[in-house]
Amino acid sequence: MSLPTCPIPLGDYPRVLLAHGGGGRLMHRLIDELFLAAFGAPATRHDGHVFTPPAGALAVTTDSFVVRPLFFPGADIGALAVYGTVNDLAMCGAAPHALAAAFVLEEGLAIETLWRVVHSAAAAARAAGVPIVTGDTKVVERGKGDGVFITTTGVGVVRPGVELAPAHIRPGDAVLLSGEVGNHGVAVMAAREGLTFTAPIESDAAPLWPLVEVLLTATGGAVHVLRDPTRGGLATTLCELAAGAELGLEIDAAAVPVAAPVGAACELLGLDPWYVANEGKLVAVLPGDHAPAALAALRGHPLGRDAAVIGTVTEAHPGRVVARNALGGTRVIEMLSGEQLPRIC
Amino acid sequence: MSLPTCPIPLGDYPRVLLAHGGGGRLMHRLIDELFLAAFGAPATRHDGHVFTPPAGALAVTTDSFVVRPLFFPGADIGALAVYGTVNDLAMCGAAPHALAAAFVLEEGLAIETLWRVVHSAAAAARAAGVPIVTGDTKVVERGKGDGVFITTTGVGVVRPGVELAPAHIRPGDAVLLSGEVGNHGVAVMAAREGLTFTAPIESDAAPLWPLVEVLLTATGGAVHVLRDPTRGGLATTLCELAAGAELGLEIDAAAVPVAAPVGAACELLGLDPWYVANEGKLVAVLPGDHAPAALAALRGHPLGRDAAVIGTVTEAHPGRVVARNALGGTRVIEMLSGEQLPRIC
Repeated sequence: MSLPTCPIPLGDYPRVLLAHGGGGRLMHRLIDELFLAAFGAPATRHDGHVFTPPAGALAVTTDSFVVRPLFFPGADIGALAVYGTVNDLAMCGAAPHALAAAFVLEEGLAIETLWRVVHSAAAAARAAGVPIVTGDTKVVERGKGDGVFITTTGVGVVRPGVELAPAHIRPGDAVLLSGEVGNHGVAVMAAREGLTFTAPIESDAAPLWPLVEVLLTATGGAVHVLRDPTRGGLATTLCELAAGAELGLEIDAAAVPVAAPVGAACELLGLDPWYVANEGKLVAVLPGDHAPAALAALRGHPLGRDAAVIGTVTEAHPGRVVARNALGGTRVIEMLSGEQLPRIC
Repeated sequence: MSLPTCPIPLGDYPRVLLAHGGGGRLMHRLIDELFLAAFGAPATRHDGHVFTPPAGALAVTTDSFVVRPLFFPGADIGALAVYGTVNDLAMCGAAPHALAAAFVLEEGLAIETLWRVVHSAAAAARAAGVPIVTGDTKVVERGKGDGVFITTTGVGVVRPGVELAPAHIRPGDAVLLSGEVGNHGVAVMAAREGLTFTAPIESDAAPLWPLVEVLLTATGGAVHVLRDPTRGGLATTLCELAAGAELGLEIDAAAVPVAAPVGAACELLGLDPWYVANEGKLVAVLPGDHAPAALAALRGHPLGRDAAVIGTVTEAHPGRVVARNALGGTRVIEMLSGEQLPRIC
């Protein structure tokens, strides 16, 4: 990706100063020349943005992003902040309509680093087809932050007739996963620790709404719930769904796709890929008779080409997730209990 | 204000751990027992909230709050995070409809401190009549944050027919201010530096929508623009309005109310109260013939009892703000250029 030249002359203020958050001239210049230059016209200079959404249900979601390092194979904090929030909207069955982005900067951050992050967020927003309409900038003293934290909030338009909730899950439902798990967490971890693998591992960060759209269309909206397995990974997401539905999930362990390099890296790092965060995957629970059409729809989209039916919903063991291996052995899947990978998103 | 006992036993995990942001059991417990306990039913445990707003225009606004210290006379970061965002909506002519709150916590923060902040945010949301419907929690390592940062995003319902923008300002308009300036910034500064004054100075943090509502009603919606003079203070807000309208503002310096203790504290601290942040004041620009009704309406509300007409809009000196003193002398008011008070909100 070629990056336009940072529009703020680096010889002028090459690093973020406290005054960049003070509300005065320097802040206005940062907003005009850096943020608005990247985000384009819809971003209002005023503190609020007025818009008229289509009639019907909206979704709103917010997430702070504190990933470390700021840049890693496949993505960076700017792209992640956009895709993470767009994906939370998609999990509500909502097309992204508008984003707000609030930045907490650490004094001393290189303006050029900020420019790269902001430009990446702008590119991600364009890729996801959503405008960044308003924002905020604060600066904290050196040692009171960590480069840049971004909080993005999304407003989405819920597809008419779609209502997704764990309470809609029924015995006999199929559990689908859109692709390989663990890539994002391993990519970030490797970048943080300076590890390199012979087969490069990239974050899967991507905007999921187009994949949700084909899934909803293919099933006539018959999806019961969608979740993106981010922090806590696939295992934690499955546990949340079982608990929310008060039903059991029976997972075919061999059906869960894990890329070979990710599996190898996890073994090396002592991680279980089922607990590692993803940023471009979804879990869908839907009536079993819709599963073939749903699977075909997912596989027909580039983001879902490794999709699989990974399990079924059962009245046995309500609230619990049980994984069955190829030999017929079973183990109970527990929610992540401690902290496996801090600051992964 | 009496505070319920912190529901998470302090002997258990008395301080925030990295695992509280990890997506697993500890995070779920923090959300259920602390955040949801304070914010109540509407806050969804899932990452997104679905709602159906009334038809018409909505406003969206986001702000990160990094104020230091967390607690200061008159308010704290929790109340400020709610009122600040509610007020940005009000400046769009919008009643608050829903809030999202994202927390970035520093490892080691006392759970009881977090509980006080969250409880204060919940109380402020109740006072403003707006539910906190969704949120997020992240944890950064000790020394990579500063206790707690909060990003709140608000969705508001714009009052039908109201369209506020600096471009609507016309020559002959009156400039109104709803009360004394400088209280918030001086209260925070004094708390930070451990200063005490004989006359206690409290932050003016308050939700402004009720005041906006009476103003819009009294003027039949004839208001041209509203702004809350936060970072950069009254002076910077006036400069922004003059620049946005491409018209001049002529301000009667003696008409700008400053509480005597705030004026004295500013003199002591070398601050100009016109540049000090407020969190419960508004500036309204509206047609001169509506000014008497507008002033009466503001003064009839507890948050506007010291309201004043502080100036007029002129075609002379477009883009500039000129203050005239009691002796007829004038000075040009400039936007804040450096950083007067870092981390004031």
